[in-house]
Amino acid sequence: MRIAVDAMGGDRAPGEVVSGAVTACTQPGQQVVLVGQPDAIRECIGHRSYPREALEIVPAEETVGMGDPPASALRRPRTSLAVAVNLVREGDCQAVVSAGNSGAFMGLATVRLDRAPGVERPAIAIVVPTPAGPRVVLDVGANATCKPEHLVQFAHMGYVYARNALAIPRPRVGLLSIGEEASKGSELTKATHKLLSEIGAELNFVGNIEGDTAFEGRADVVVCDGFSGNVLLKAAEGMAGAIMAGLREALTRDWRTKLAAWMLRGALREFRSNFDYASYGGTLLLGVKGTCVVCHGRSGARAIASAIAVARRAVETRVIDQIADACAGTAKQEAAAVSQGGER
Amino acid sequence: MRIAVDAMGGDRAPGEVVSGAVTACTQPGQQVVLVGQPDAIRECIGHRSYPREALEIVPAEETVGMGDPPASALRRPRTSLAVAVNLVREGDCQAVVSAGNSGAFMGLATVRLDRAPGVERPAIAIVVPTPAGPRVVLDVGANATCKPEHLVQFAHMGYVYARNALAIPRPRVGLLSIGEEASKGSELTKATHKLLSEIGAELNFVGNIEGDTAFEGRADVVVCDGFSGNVLLKAAEGMAGAIMAGLREALTRDWRTKLAAWMLRGALREFRSNFDYASYGGTLLLGVKGTCVVCHGRSGARAIASAIAVARRAVETRVIDQIADACAGTAKQEAAAVSQGGER
Repeated sequence: MRIAVDAMGGDRAPGEVVSGAVTACTQPGQQVVLVGQPDAIRECIGHRSYPREALEIVPAEETVGMGDPPASALRRPRTSLAVAVNLVREGDCQAVVSAGNSGAFMGLATVRLDRAPGVERPAIAIVVPTPAGPRVVLDVGANATCKPEHLVQFAHMGYVYARNALAIPRPRVGLLSIGEEASKGSELTKATHKLLSEIGAELNFVGNIEGDTAFEGRADVVVCDGFSGNVLLKAAEGMAGAIMAGLREALTRDWRTKLAAWMLRGALREFRSNFDYASYGGTLLLGVKGTCVVCHGRSGARAIASAIAVARRAVETRVIDQIADACAGTAKQEAAAVSQGGER
Repeated sequence: MRIAVDAMGGDRAPGEVVSGAVTACTQPGQQVVLVGQPDAIRECIGHRSYPREALEIVPAEETVGMGDPPASALRRPRTSLAVAVNLVREGDCQAVVSAGNSGAFMGLATVRLDRAPGVERPAIAIVVPTPAGPRVVLDVGANATCKPEHLVQFAHMGYVYARNALAIPRPRVGLLSIGEEASKGSELTKATHKLLSEIGAELNFVGNIEGDTAFEGRADVVVCDGFSGNVLLKAAEGMAGAIMAGLREALTRDWRTKLAAWMLRGALREFRSNFDYASYGGTLLLGVKGTCVVCHGRSGARAIASAIAVARRAVETRVIDQIADACAGTAKQEAAAVSQGGER
């Protein structure tokens, strides 16, 4: 298993990215290819020990800036992102991981790896582990402006992903909106609700889901445009971070609270791990013919290591190929394929 | 101070709404007018004690359902919501509070109370108290689909609101998007970014704000379309609720954690109140000529009492009139008025 990592992409690259990659390559059978400026990468590795054969450096002179327009990134073949994506295209690596410019990543993946048949817009899907089980949310940032047909494609892809990668036998699909009634929402969600209702039984469509219940029990797959999905995810993350910081402050106020915190250490450790967003760093790009894992721009070493694990699992379960198979043909054929799959 | 309350609006009406109104009317100088079915209201009041002159019931036979299209609510003058809004129109009450159908509320307020001059779309503004100070977010649900010009009007209204009602001398205005760079976001946010940049100095425009930092330090006013704003707010609320539930579970696991929780009770109480969304129930509708407070559909008694307090403060500070004054004339005249105000 060889996974290409864009060493220069992300707010904390190359330091944190390289550190996460070094951690990941200590896993048995895992090879990591770091793509970027060799000197900078070597400096970041420093004196850390790792199995020599598990880490390789492939040089790329240029980098894609976080604010660069995706179109300009497509015209530059020597950026670390473009070289990393090309390693997958050429079959040298099985997956690519980047915390860099996600628009550029999606653009390069779409053009160099090609889209799955019938997919107009690839989508970024995140798996959120909640007390009620894992939830898939897509799109969370690849497509800021969408048409209803795109959201229907996201629903198909999310359904197959939840069924095949998360082993949920008949995933329930919900539509992110701002009211549970079909009449509530934007022009986009109202039109999408209508389309999904028509093919609802095949996709197990359960209607609108609101932001406060998106991670609760009603749906396994939450479908949205990339703008709303990104806001949903980041607002939840931001609130979790703020509350955890407030709790830390409350627990370290004086000797008495510190003593109580010590008594609670086991329960609090478990509680924190339930809401720890760093532990599931990577999100999959669905709808392209290749395994691409998109990381948060602010990813640290732990999130990068986790993203490499996400990429590995995706390759092992062949979920990207299965989505491409399920998407084959027109939307109608897709629907039929998904339905048969669901009845197996 | 007389405030009309739609007793029949909301998921938990009339019980919780009436209960919150009874609590509010015990405040000195506060009169509450409950609008709805008198028998149902009297049953909910039950044997609770309150100053007789502070609570009045105005009958309305019909109710607006949570899923009713706003247009149908406009054609029915005898709903509790329509009668309550009319009490403000006729000058009998100074403000109206409802936890009912927010689209219908906005429609009725716009038509019966009229819009402030120059405002095409009224917006729902929420004040979120954060450790870094209060933040205004608008729109959070009135306008699911917006044009860039609407967002610029929201920016003007939010600026005046933060300056006059929250006493922030020169509020910083940010635009909710999915990347800090001007090139990131939807077609709507990119066009709005351009417009706000042109008049940026007058509005103290600080650029894009992301979902995870919306409640942090960079901006005092966060501008967004009603769909994204609703998702932002509800995702943050939902995450806060889930974490608090998880913490409660961790603290009540066994005798040892219960003892530790008892030792922490003071610190935890303060911590919880920082993230308690029920304590600031009401959101103001900006851009209409009248004080309208929109509550969350799931509001309980405490949120309703808090919303009545929000309405009272808004009337006392005359913020709605001041926004109408600032909005007077065209967008250009508005900008000039805001700018002069900011330099005082």
